[in-house]
Amino acid sequence: MVNIAVLGYGTVGSGVVEVIDRNGGSINMKSGRDIRIKYVLDLRDFPGDRVEPILVHDFDVILNDPEVKIVVEVMGGVEPAYTFVKKSLLAGKSVCTSNKELVAKHGPELIAIAREHNINFLFEASVGGGIPVIRPINSSLTADPIVEIRGILNGTTNYILTQMDVAGWDFDKALATAQSVGYAERNPEADIEGYDATRKIAILASLAFGRNVDYEKIYTEGISKITVTDMLYAKKLGGAIKLLGSCTKQGDSYYAMVAPFIVGSDHPLYAVSGVYNAIFIRGDAIGNVMFYGSGAGKLPTACAVVSDIVDAAKHLDKHIYTFWSPEELTLAGTGGAVRSFFARVSGSPADCEAEIKETFGSVRFIQIDEAPGEFGFVTDPVTEQSFDENIKKIPGVLGRIRLESSI
Amino acid sequence: MVNIAVLGYGTVGSGVVEVIDRNGGSINMKSGRDIRIKYVLDLRDFPGDRVEPILVHDFDVILNDPEVKIVVEVMGGVEPAYTFVKKSLLAGKSVCTSNKELVAKHGPELIAIAREHNINFLFEASVGGGIPVIRPINSSLTADPIVEIRGILNGTTNYILTQMDVAGWDFDKALATAQSVGYAERNPEADIEGYDATRKIAILASLAFGRNVDYEKIYTEGISKITVTDMLYAKKLGGAIKLLGSCTKQGDSYYAMVAPFIVGSDHPLYAVSGVYNAIFIRGDAIGNVMFYGSGAGKLPTACAVVSDIVDAAKHLDKHIYTFWSPEELTLAGTGGAVRSFFARVSGSPADCEAEIKETFGSVRFIQIDEAPGEFGFVTDPVTEQSFDENIKKIPGVLGRIRLESSI
Repeated sequence: MVNIAVLGYGTVGSGVVEVIDRNGGSINMKSGRDIRIKYVLDLRDFPGDRVEPILVHDFDVILNDPEVKIVVEVMGGVEPAYTFVKKSLLAGKSVCTSNKELVAKHGPELIAIAREHNINFLFEASVGGGIPVIRPINSSLTADPIVEIRGILNGTTNYILTQMDVAGWDFDKALATAQSVGYAERNPEADIEGYDATRKIAILASLAFGRNVDYEKIYTEGISKITVTDMLYAKKLGGAIKLLGSCTKQGDSYYAMVAPFIVGSDHPLYAVSGVYNAIFIRGDAIGNVMFYGSGAGKLPTACAVVSDIVDAAKHLDKHIYTFWSPEELTLAGTGGAVRSFFARVSGSPADCEAEIKETFGSVRFIQIDEAPGEFGFVTDPVTEQSFDENIKKIPGVLGRIRLESSI
Repeated sequence: MVNIAVLGYGTVGSGVVEVIDRNGGSINMKSGRDIRIKYVLDLRDFPGDRVEPILVHDFDVILNDPEVKIVVEVMGGVEPAYTFVKKSLLAGKSVCTSNKELVAKHGPELIAIAREHNINFLFEASVGGGIPVIRPINSSLTADPIVEIRGILNGTTNYILTQMDVAGWDFDKALATAQSVGYAERNPEADIEGYDATRKIAILASLAFGRNVDYEKIYTEGISKITVTDMLYAKKLGGAIKLLGSCTKQGDSYYAMVAPFIVGSDHPLYAVSGVYNAIFIRGDAIGNVMFYGSGAGKLPTACAVVSDIVDAAKHLDKHIYTFWSPEELTLAGTGGAVRSFFARVSGSPADCEAEIKETFGSVRFIQIDEAPGEFGFVTDPVTEQSFDENIKKIPGVLGRIRLESSI
């Protein structure tokens, strides 16, 4: 028997209880233990609910109960989650969490405490909802250094972009619909401005490269300025616009970014639509690998948490090594990253074709019927810095979007 | 220090040596041990090669050396691999293998021996080349029973089908090209008739459902009868033809099959082209998950083998539990499986529209310019048995292909 305590009875917490109740038999077989939810912590009461008899309001009841071996933190936010998790680990209890803010901010410290106490701090659900990606990076992609990790990491923005692309809705309508069906929060800033994806790529990059990536140092652009016209240009180019979080090694430099990209139809991330997420990883020897699945949602996320509970129960007295050193991975400024750009310019190509070619060399011009009075062009790969400097020389520029893969 | 021996210095074996030589530093860090290749076993000599000083021709040298803790079997074929692997496990040496024939035929027995000796029998590379899928099924998808597993499991056939689709080549030309670029063997039967995929889906299904699936009992159809005209119909229907290996639970019955399917563009497997492989998994709570990557090739497969070596080195005295009981999973006859079918018929719909509608109820007719004098139709979901019986009533049937997902 292994007693666990669930901190937070919100969406994910109630999903964890539901999955354990529903699949108890197979979960117990796979963990080799009988897993029992001894406590659920929440400030609220839930009269008549299945958890009423085990609900507690005081974290110390859990902390001081030596029978509790695994604490499941699914409250979200940095505090009080950080305090509760740290106290749990220091008391010798393993912790499983879905909390990306907590992991991005305090991951290395909490991993180190778990290591010292020969217990585990596991966080599969903090990135990619139900997609197994943290554990595969840590225990399967071990033969070959990772050189690129790139993902669609936020279901809300991917849903909005997919609706704009497929239904032709503008951003505001797509956002309002996402809110009405529960895919976006009333205050959607963390999602649409990319802050959620930034924390997730920081976690993935820290694991992929073994050193701590500070999410506050990652250049971040959201999707609120993307228009249906941008979508139409992308489609004409044979691609689609996706919000990507990425960290890549180019030479000896590491570049990290969250921003909208035009992804070509030859890229496996192109077909990832709606609320699905996917994480694309590249190594020199292993080549391209991708993990795909439900990036959010109560039950998929709960399944990821429960897979960590199973792993923690299998390793009650054995630390599973996680390669995430507190030493900082120094990110290069985005200026040195090399890629192609798409730019929109008012007027017609004839007006400034010579100027653009003189500035950018070989470019590809593109026009769409839906946007008369303007045109677009795609550059060959250039550094971000050189693009930023050169684009200033072109009059009438309306906007620019980065390109992923060769279009 | 952990001494390992590599059995077989062919494509995968030389890849394993190359990956360990190239990435030794990070591999040692991730395994927490210094991994040293003490022997390579091969019947051939390799004068001047890096392995010349450690080459042995006699397996007993390896078997009788107590310093060898991990045996890496990358010879392929059932014998002598089975004898060598079994002897190694009985001698207390962990085994990592890429050998799908061995694993499909003797998996449960070898896992049981490893369990008795508190060592490990690992086989990540036996399915999906470099794609991490065996370990994720075993240690990540533990919260929710799997109800469907379905994959593009053979790179050769996927390359051929992609060339037929994209370049419009007929099967013979696509096969010849695959052979000339090294993606198909001179005797391609095991790939194109689906036998390779059958062993792989048997391994995956055994792990997904926890009981042994006998690959010899899986209904198998290859791709050698697929034509460019079939491809064109599939495209008009909004899909593409893929060779899928699948095992699904419908009610209380398990259905397994390897056969070409028309996969709709809304399905994540649709975009998997060329020599890439992917494995799609569905659970009630976790929803859809997919793992994608290089399904074959020297270095990707070698990376999967090396990830097993790392895991074996981390768990020298701890058995990693694998849920694959020797008890047989009884497969239902394919007759009861429910799906839609596409059928081709000579003549024009007007000739037998009434007959088809009377027999199959609601159907969708389709014609393509490239195939005058015939037409196709798509049925609503029916059992295989009912389709087989009813299609005999229609005169002039030219062929049929199963459908995956709603088109």
